Amino acid sequence: MSDHATHNDKVRVGQVKEITSLSNPVIKDIRALSMKKHRDETGTFLAEGLKLVIDAIELGWSIRTLIYAKGQRGKDQVEKIAALTIARGGLVLEVSDKVLTAITRRDNPQAVIAVFEQKLAALEAVRMAPDDTWVALDRVRDPGNLGTIIRTADAAGAAGVMLIGDTVDPFSTETVRATMGSIFAVPLVRVSEAEFLAWSKKAEPLVVGSHLKGSVDYRSIGYKGRPVILLMGNEQQGLPDTLAKACGKLARIPQTGRADSLNLAIATGVMLFEARRHLLDLAEPAATGKTPS
Amino acid sequence: MSDHATHNDKVRVGQVKEITSLSNPVIKDIRALSMKKHRDETGTFLAEGLKLVIDAIELGWSIRTLIYAKGQRGKDQVEKIAALTIARGGLVLEVSDKVLTAITRRDNPQAVIAVFEQKLAALEAVRMAPDDTWVALDRVRDPGNLGTIIRTADAAGAAGVMLIGDTVDPFSTETVRATMGSIFAVPLVRVSEAEFLAWSKKAEPLVVGSHLKGSVDYRSIGYKGRPVILLMGNEQQGLPDTLAKACGKLARIPQTGRADSLNLAIATGVMLFEARRHLLDLAEPAATGKTPS
Repeated sequence: MSDHATHNDKVRVGQVKEITSLSNPVIKDIRALSMKKHRDETGTFLAEGLKLVIDAIELGWSIRTLIYAKGQRGKDQVEKIAALTIARGGLVLEVSDKVLTAITRRDNPQAVIAVFEQKLAALEAVRMAPDDTWVALDRVRDPGNLGTIIRTADAAGAAGVMLIGDTVDPFSTETVRATMGSIFAVPLVRVSEAEFLAWSKKAEPLVVGSHLKGSVDYRSIGYKGRPVILLMGNEQQGLPDTLAKACGKLARIPQTGRADSLNLAIATGVMLFEARRHLLDLAEPAATGKTPS
Repeated sequence: MSDHATHNDKVRVGQVKEITSLSNPVIKDIRALSMKKHRDETGTFLAEGLKLVIDAIELGWSIRTLIYAKGQRGKDQVEKIAALTIARGGLVLEVSDKVLTAITRRDNPQAVIAVFEQKLAALEAVRMAPDDTWVALDRVRDPGNLGTIIRTADAAGAAGVMLIGDTVDPFSTETVRATMGSIFAVPLVRVSEAEFLAWSKKAEPLVVGSHLKGSVDYRSIGYKGRPVILLMGNEQQGLPDTLAKACGKLARIPQTGRADSLNLAIATGVMLFEARRHLLDLAEPAATGKTPS
């Protein structure tokens, strides 16, 4: 056992543990977060990157464990998060690069990572105002698609993302990575198909479904001043009839070419920027650091 | 050595080799196509899926080797491609599932895969008509992004994709997979930055660059009736000054939210569907099988 608590640093007021061994049970638990079962049991997930962790804390997410590479000791921002983590009863781990690589399963891991408590919004709490847009995803299978869609929803100013039925876990490391931090900014709601149908009947938003039999051009819909749900189906099968029937409009993106179709995240992006077209402008100054990646 | 030629089937007129051994040198060569070095040396690449292989042949791509799972023997379409491959001097391999899994590095591999000759278009041959749109990508790093962009270019009816500088190899298995077959439909040109700059000076298309300092709303540009190059920069750094200077317009997509930005493929999709907005409509009947995936 190579861990031991250090108490010789005034910022690291207590439980900073140094760990270099992969067989340490704390590390084993963190590594197990790559499995959905373990994420579900603990109600936690892993996020990577100093900026992300800072943003998450600022946005009110509960940090359970802060993990950083040895080389980060003494750095201002890291010490600050460490103190804050301890103050809130969390654990702070200073680990070797080998441990970081093992946890993240990456060759060049981020130097700061953290375990956060999962947080979902409740469907009952969703109140849609005019010009609010939610994206609803039915049984989406690809973790990268889901992450990219959450990131896109954030950039387009959507109010949140609803995950219907068997949609993949938004807290998987692959999805969290693809969100580039938007996992902490975009409210997520998990619902069954039945719950979604009952809610949309009552809340009466304009539900626009992307559908291969959709006869309406996605650009011809009157999105202005209405609460809008953009409903996207599963990658292989699209929307089932049950959900298609709940749509006020079944829309398509006109396409040419030999490709079977657009990728789901691209289709969502194109439709989302259309639905919010009247709400987005360049009022903010340029050069805010927004670089596509 | 477990291979041997079979001659007892009238469709498989000759060189169908049965292979079950991973140490077979032909299989080793095909597996080596996962490395760029080997793809470059042989000028070939791997594509997966029966439909894709049929489409590629129809579009005039040269097949070098057809590989199919034992269970595919006797199937009409497979026998037809096999005969055609042999007629064109190619090799046909009937292999075990183990071999297919090894070649594709996937648990549930496609039952039909093939090695094709790489094909790039020459920059000198590019003639841009009014309303032609090319996407130009500068040093794009992510193979999935590149593949998704090629697929999106196909769906939006772009004329082709230019790959500037150190952009990743379009013939990697990951990129080819993400194109969902569009790799065979969308002309690709590889150019150095200097070549691109010289060409665009001479050809005089409207070059619209996506740039974080772009002050122009991407929707305010007059794309109609002009040859347009949509120029997208590297995921981390965006466009360098050298390329930014060659742009007739530096554009931005208005964004909100805490996300750093849109994913590159999403930004390209949103801008591309805007640039070709006047050219796309739902004239074709619905239900042509276009499901987002």
